[in-house]
Amino acid sequence: MQRLNPFQIAQQQLDTAAEKLGLDPATHELLRWPMHEIKMVLPVKMDDGSTRIFHAFRIQYNTARGPAKGGIRWHPDETIDTVRALAAWMTWKTSVVDIPLGGGKGGVVCNPKELSEMEKERLARAYIRAVARNLGVTRDVPAPDVYTTPQIMAWMMDEFETIVGEAHPGVITGKPIPLGGSQGRGDATARGGIYVTREAAKLVGTDLKGKTMAIQGFGNAGQHAALLGEEILGLKLVAASDSKGGVYNPKGIEAKALVDYKLRSGVLQGFPGAEEISNEDLLAMEVTVLFPAALENVITKENADKVRCKISCELANGPTTPEADAILYDKGVLLLP
Amino acid sequence: MQRLNPFQIAQQQLDTAAEKLGLDPATHELLRWPMHEIKMVLPVKMDDGSTRIFHAFRIQYNTARGPAKGGIRWHPDETIDTVRALAAWMTWKTSVVDIPLGGGKGGVVCNPKELSEMEKERLARAYIRAVARNLGVTRDVPAPDVYTTPQIMAWMMDEFETIVGEAHPGVITGKPIPLGGSQGRGDATARGGIYVTREAAKLVGTDLKGKTMAIQGFGNAGQHAALLGEEILGLKLVAASDSKGGVYNPKGIEAKALVDYKLRSGVLQGFPGAEEISNEDLLAMEVTVLFPAALENVITKENADKVRCKISCELANGPTTPEADAILYDKGVLLLP
Amino acid sequence: MQRLNPFQIAQQQLDTAAEKLGLDPATHELLRWPMHEIKMVLPVKMDDGSTRIFHAFRIQYNTARGPAKGGIRWHPDETIDTVRALAAWMTWKTSVVDIPLGGGKGGVVCNPKELSEMEKERLARAYIRAVARNLGVTRDVPAPDVYTTPQIMAWMMDEFETIVGEAHPGVITGKPIPLGGSQGRGDATARGGIYVTREAAKLVGTDLKGKTMAIQGFGNAGQHAALLGEEILGLKLVAASDSKGGVYNPKGIEAKALVDYKLRSGVLQGFPGAEEISNEDLLAMEVTVLFPAALENVITKENADKVRCKISCELANGPTTPEADAILYDKGVLLLP
Amino acid sequence: MQRLNPFQIAQQQLDTAAEKLGLDPATHELLRWPMHEIKMVLPVKMDDGSTRIFHAFRIQYNTARGPAKGGIRWHPDETIDTVRALAAWMTWKTSVVDIPLGGGKGGVVCNPKELSEMEKERLARAYIRAVARNLGVTRDVPAPDVYTTPQIMAWMMDEFETIVGEAHPGVITGKPIPLGGSQGRGDATARGGIYVTREAAKLVGTDLKGKTMAIQGFGNAGQHAALLGEEILGLKLVAASDSKGGVYNPKGIEAKALVDYKLRSGVLQGFPGAEEISNEDLLAMEVTVLFPAALENVITKENADKVRCKISCELANGPTTPEADAILYDKGVLLLP
Amino acid sequence: MQRLNPFQIAQQQLDTAAEKLGLDPATHELLRWPMHEIKMVLPVKMDDGSTRIFHAFRIQYNTARGPAKGGIRWHPDETIDTVRALAAWMTWKTSVVDIPLGGGKGGVVCNPKELSEMEKERLARAYIRAVARNLGVTRDVPAPDVYTTPQIMAWMMDEFETIVGEAHPGVITGKPIPLGGSQGRGDATARGGIYVTREAAKLVGTDLKGKTMAIQGFGNAGQHAALLGEEILGLKLVAASDSKGGVYNPKGIEAKALVDYKLRSGVLQGFPGAEEISNEDLLAMEVTVLFPAALENVITKENADKVRCKISCELANGPTTPEADAILYDKGVLLLP
Amino acid sequence: MQRLNPFQIAQQQLDTAAEKLGLDPATHELLRWPMHEIKMVLPVKMDDGSTRIFHAFRIQYNTARGPAKGGIRWHPDETIDTVRALAAWMTWKTSVVDIPLGGGKGGVVCNPKELSEMEKERLARAYIRAVARNLGVTRDVPAPDVYTTPQIMAWMMDEFETIVGEAHPGVITGKPIPLGGSQGRGDATARGGIYVTREAAKLVGTDLKGKTMAIQGFGNAGQHAALLGEEILGLKLVAASDSKGGVYNPKGIEAKALVDYKLRSGVLQGFPGAEEISNEDLLAMEVTVLFPAALENVITKENADKVRCKISCELANGPTTPEADAILYDKGVLLLP
Repeated sequence: MQRLNPFQIAQQQLDTAAEKLGLDPATHELLRWPMHEIKMVLPVKMDDGSTRIFHAFRIQYNTARGPAKGGIRWHPDETIDTVRALAAWMTWKTSVVDIPLGGGKGGVVCNPKELSEMEKERLARAYIRAVARNLGVTRDVPAPDVYTTPQIMAWMMDEFETIVGEAHPGVITGKPIPLGGSQGRGDATARGGIYVTREAAKLVGTDLKGKTMAIQGFGNAGQHAALLGEEILGLKLVAASDSKGGVYNPKGIEAKALVDYKLRSGVLQGFPGAEEISNEDLLAMEVTVLFPAALENVITKENADKVRCKISCELANGPTTPEADAILYDKGVLLLP
Repeated sequence: MQRLNPFQIAQQQLDTAAEKLGLDPATHELLRWPMHEIKMVLPVKMDDGSTRIFHAFRIQYNTARGPAKGGIRWHPDETIDTVRALAAWMTWKTSVVDIPLGGGKGGVVCNPKELSEMEKERLARAYIRAVARNLGVTRDVPAPDVYTTPQIMAWMMDEFETIVGEAHPGVITGKPIPLGGSQGRGDATARGGIYVTREAAKLVGTDLKGKTMAIQGFGNAGQHAALLGEEILGLKLVAASDSKGGVYNPKGIEAKALVDYKLRSGVLQGFPGAEEISNEDLLAMEVTVLFPAALENVITKENADKVRCKISCELANGPTTPEADAILYDKGVLLLP
Repeated sequence: MQRLNPFQIAQQQLDTAAEKLGLDPATHELLRWPMHEIKMVLPVKMDDGSTRIFHAFRIQYNTARGPAKGGIRWHPDETIDTVRALAAWMTWKTSVVDIPLGGGKGGVVCNPKELSEMEKERLARAYIRAVARNLGVTRDVPAPDVYTTPQIMAWMMDEFETIVGEAHPGVITGKPIPLGGSQGRGDATARGGIYVTREAAKLVGTDLKGKTMAIQGFGNAGQHAALLGEEILGLKLVAASDSKGGVYNPKGIEAKALVDYKLRSGVLQGFPGAEEISNEDLLAMEVTVLFPAALENVITKENADKVRCKISCELANGPTTPEADAILYDKGVLLLP
Repeated sequence: MQRLNPFQIAQQQLDTAAEKLGLDPATHELLRWPMHEIKMVLPVKMDDGSTRIFHAFRIQYNTARGPAKGGIRWHPDETIDTVRALAAWMTWKTSVVDIPLGGGKGGVVCNPKELSEMEKERLARAYIRAVARNLGVTRDVPAPDVYTTPQIMAWMMDEFETIVGEAHPGVITGKPIPLGGSQGRGDATARGGIYVTREAAKLVGTDLKGKTMAIQGFGNAGQHAALLGEEILGLKLVAASDSKGGVYNPKGIEAKALVDYKLRSGVLQGFPGAEEISNEDLLAMEVTVLFPAALENVITKENADKVRCKISCELANGPTTPEADAILYDKGVLLLP
Repeated sequence: MQRLNPFQIAQQQLDTAAEKLGLDPATHELLRWPMHEIKMVLPVKMDDGSTRIFHAFRIQYNTARGPAKGGIRWHPDETIDTVRALAAWMTWKTSVVDIPLGGGKGGVVCNPKELSEMEKERLARAYIRAVARNLGVTRDVPAPDVYTTPQIMAWMMDEFETIVGEAHPGVITGKPIPLGGSQGRGDATARGGIYVTREAAKLVGTDLKGKTMAIQGFGNAGQHAALLGEEILGLKLVAASDSKGGVYNPKGIEAKALVDYKLRSGVLQGFPGAEEISNEDLLAMEVTVLFPAALENVITKENADKVRCKISCELANGPTTPEADAILYDKGVLLLP
Repeated sequence: MQRLNPFQIAQQQLDTAAEKLGLDPATHELLRWPMHEIKMVLPVKMDDGSTRIFHAFRIQYNTARGPAKGGIRWHPDETIDTVRALAAWMTWKTSVVDIPLGGGKGGVVCNPKELSEMEKERLARAYIRAVARNLGVTRDVPAPDVYTTPQIMAWMMDEFETIVGEAHPGVITGKPIPLGGSQGRGDATARGGIYVTREAAKLVGTDLKGKTMAIQGFGNAGQHAALLGEEILGLKLVAASDSKGGVYNPKGIEAKALVDYKLRSGVLQGFPGAEEISNEDLLAMEVTVLFPAALENVITKENADKVRCKISCELANGPTTPEADAILYDKGVLLLP
């Protein structure tokens, strides 16, 4: 059986919802597709004087409720179907919480780890030059996402402002704070998940204080989840992993110490007093709360039955496939948000 | 072996040319892809009050030499790869004849035969509403193409002028003449082919007068080729075919009579004094000049060795695949243009 | 003696005010006329395939204090002088309450009751297409008015956003709430009148609790006046009328019951326990508060001396002519607002 | 019987033509009205420091065939119906000669003779400031007309260019030649009439050489008609009149001498060797060619039966009413153009 | 030794700061110069019909942190270097208090005292016409400054709104309040200085109540400083001076009485009960607080050692030169702000 | 006595002309100054990662007759006064030959010889980014000038087109021909001078055939002057010089050979069969025609009396100062153009 790509998954989810809602066929069909897709190739000068060609996308999935909103991903394995799916999910998200925005997403097929700072700047500017006509506070407002940073947002904003010939800081979110970025953006994803976990725990009558948590993916969202899970929920961090492997200590790991260690050394392995584990070990760990905070599709129908948490609070975009959702649901896992 | 789609064919052709030219890798790679692709879904009200969703494209393949130029196709089997290929070919064409335009192409997946006039108007306007920001005399100038008519161009121009709030007749070519259309557009494709055939015949020392021609595809281009081949080159029409079949008369068919017959009855079959033949028969006919005037990819490596004309003058976009080109070339067929 | 049209009345009112204010002649003359008037004819496709021509107006009376603000009326008897007068009154209104807006008004000569939903949509869009260049949050912001609904505003907003190519929800007020409409707009007109009545009654030392009210015109404003007059002021509804006639019950009519009855049956007549009266009867009724909530010029010098209310709180635009105002004033009626 | 205003006359003419053409009712109705009418009041500072309010119009009658084209009139008796009629006639004119323009006209109610040069400049600029958004080479291109001069056009162009922030000399025609005005505009109206007269005379077999002409209205068009009628057609000028009266000499008047006299003295009366006549006398004179070159509606059903020319070549806008046309036609007068 | 012009002083100040900050050389060099300077000549019609040519500037010193902000000065001795310096200081000011604006300044070389109101209006409008393309809420927002008034701002705003064709009140600050001006602008400069003085006095433990103040420059800022110094700080006004001389009364001068006297008579001299002093006397006076509120560069290395105040709170732009700053600092004067 | 800068010279020339013309004082004063001057600093990334700050100008001297026109100079000694003067001269030039353009000029203070190609590209783009708002076919159309090449124009055009989002090849002249450059631009300056020399020689009755020419400055203009002087006028080239020195051969130098030599070796010295001379020698040479084709102000009152040519045809901008002009004139030299 062929594996579905992320956009096919997103369409299946919509189909299920549409059937339950009794959505009229025209609206259903309209929502199954991006309203406006832009695909570009970007020629960019490398530091050695050569020119490289990058493939890039911007999807404005649906703007009926307001300007599109969604990040720009830089990843060597980026595909248009991933971007379509994420743009669809942004549309549902802005709609469910009733903010006057539509959903969008962008991507560039590139490996930022192989680009110098000056090459990144030129790529960021090239992206905006190609798509500027479609952006702005009344059209589409990008944001940082996988491998795109506040510095990249600053270059993008500067390029957009040059092209439109005016100050237009609202064209992009996730800017550095001195250039108009929002206070609190740093821990917003994690904080949102922590609050949802807190409220959900109240609803089901679970006392989280002193219970355990494990974090899969220890980038920005995962690190803040560790810190805030400890601070706000009183959870004890027992395991964390990133793309290079993880660490485990059943007696608890001090969140701040682990964050400092990761920032200093770039990896989790070797953290004093913890044993090394794999990502798969982590997902299968018996904890009260699991925070999947890495990428999409890490919990699938192949490994879902090994998951043993009580609550799974998703901080990444779509870490669990629909089939895995169903399996976890049947096992009684509380799926958030 | 998997059949290549039209865009893969176009890329192969480019690869061959790039190798011969010693094109630098960056330019070569840049030319292998559309610079700017737009994909849209268009919700359109049907006459019965329902809404239908149409998939539509606009490809601005490359605009380094000037605004994009290329038609808008309405066809139930339209694919983005066909549109990409045709847009690439428009880029090469405008460049080879050194007019300051780039190449583009558009398409809508729809069956115009199942749409009322009012539905066609609403679809034409919806297309322009979705893509207007990218059009105009300095950006991209569409034209009629498969199943799109001067009337459809008129609706598109009107919608564009409403959106930009000014007279802008240059946004589209192929308009009705009273609205600014060009004199002579009707037979321009055919006339160009006839002139090329005349000049090529001179070069190779062939006297065409009284020789035979066969026409594959008897729409606008094919009909004018018949009339002008007779009038300008003195060729004798011996066979013609369209999607429903063809007719053959070795003694010659009066072009005007056949055109009138087709316009009156909608088909070629039944034309007095001619025997019926298939499309494949026509391609295999021994004639001096063959005019493939239907669609792309009708002469392929499967049937190319049956072709027996001396000159093949292509009036359709890409009727012969690259492999077929090679076979015909080896057989000594003069391929035009 | 010739009857003055509404704009002549508005000019007379201004002349009186200018004299009292000692307004300089240039400013006075400038305020006597619309600064900017647009008259259009709109060709619109009917469902039967025919085309009809509609006459339409937009008056931007004066924008010295900010963008024009005022509704769009659809009425078979619409005239440009009515629209001019209403635009002038909008100018005085926005100025008196010191909000940074000027005054405007629009109209289309049409009978919405004879148009299908799809025809209404096409007419709404045609209106915006003709006038878009003059609208927007910094120029002129229309609103619903006689026979124009939130749905019509939604079509107008969508057309405007298509033309300008960006989200611009502020171009029009009175939109449906999910598209950005304001909470509370439904009862705003009535609630404003009720508050004015409450404050005025305090000033003149009248206790309204348990006193009577009659409502002329039982559309949106009239219905909410009935409900809120009961709820906020403690008034007893004794009579109400609409364009087809009225009902009367000296013992009181429960406002909610009458509103439900009207919404269900479309008329007031036949409401259980009430006797039928004419509009003229209603105006002549002895009540504490009369709410004229229908159209302009219903209380004139012909019928003003029959009015027997203590307070007349106008919810329609200009229901009382200047001569009638004078007569009521002389009779000691408290005229609001 | 009430006299028709010019616009009602224009509508009647259209009705007659529509009936003969079998025009479909929607197109007929659409053509009976201006598509887009703008009415403004313009506050202008006078030299004495006071402010005066001027009423002004711009009618874009129909732009289906291209941007509107038509003059701006400054006249104390200007009415919107005159401007509407002239705008309609411009629409028919541009259409009949098949140039890609629609029809427009503008007007300001003012007496230019009572304004200083600086006041005229401020009025000209105020007009453009109020209407600029609707002008430009792709929208509407004004021109000089009654009492508006090349100098006024220069002020208007300068104001428009300031507002749009770019050189845009095409916004207006009739500019001074050093600012981009057209060579030959000075005598264009007269020359066109003279050519039409020459061709018409050929068609009906009349030899004009040595025959007589009379000219009603001796402004720019009339003066050039005299000079060119003499030079090109060999006609003998026997009479001419302007608003203050006319002169007559059956032996012939040298055109250049009369033009010089008029330019020097401002009047025609007193021209050496000629007797004084009234305007009515002139119209009733027995001449081969009569050139009505003053204003509209000077030949009416009251005086048409007195006209005794063989050819009447109209250089003014609509000098002959429809009823007068019919009378002249019945009398065998050749009406041009 | 040559005296430095204000811009050279501003550059020296920056150099000193850059050295202390260890600013990187590129940023330092970039900040030493205006990013964008515009110099214009403005032809303006005088009331007598002649035309005069005015030299004008607008400096957008640096807009990295947001749109430029800064006043427009009208002064017969205006120079581009003064405007550059003031624009630089505006950049530091908006940055230090962290508001998202850059720094700008404008100037016109003219003597407003010799211009009539109508000439001032024409000059104000001419300035905006020349520079409009560079202004607006997202580009550059001027304000009143030396010899420019709220009325001049109103003319400028009106001209800008005419050019852009929309309400845009944010283009300029310091407008009359009915046109959107800010409440409290009148005393904002003085009030800011008073608050700074109050806080600084707290920090250094000085009780200002009953202490003395002297005010150099008795225009808007100086007058409000007198009033608010008395009201908020409890200071006793003992001396004040303007360009024509000053007054002194060691027993104290009631601020409101002196303000009224100045507004009535135009001068300070002759104020009852006070003795006359020169500007130099005033600067040398022994007072607790000195408010320099006139122009730049009044306290220089030539007179700085005569200054005998304890606190100098600068209300003018740069009244003290850098060398004077150093001298005052060495003498222990508390320099504010 | 202080030497005048080029702009002071240009103003003096205007003053002389104005006096002779009796120009009204306001027009004279207006023409003495640039209407619109823009000064910018441009931060540009160097290849080594550092940032350098460049000072740049664009002067739109006067645009009354049409958009500004004039080159962009890159020179280490560029000053704003040189640019002002050249912009003034462009104004006079476009006016004298009556083309509908005004005069402009731009400059960047930089040494192109010390910049890599990538740095030049970034500088060219930075210039356009800073000034784009003021350019375009209706505003200001730059061109190449000292040290700016067709390649630099191509970068500038590309940057402008990116910013405005449309094809706009007319924004700049001197582009490479494949991107829309004009045929014949290469030798246009020289060819114009040659034609003027030919016509002037006819007027004064001089036969140039076989006479001698010397060329001061052997860049593009000088080289073409040599070739065309030989080809069109039959002149014999006897001397040429550039910034590094010159060569002389009284028997004549074949123009094509010398051009090839210069292109190959970069210098003139060492050309076979010619003796070396200095620039000063060249100016003092006795020849029929001297072509000063280097920079401004090379013939001054210090060396003018040594000039011994009969005709001096200036191909550079202002090579002769006004005082030198007078001296040459007195000596009977024919000064062209």
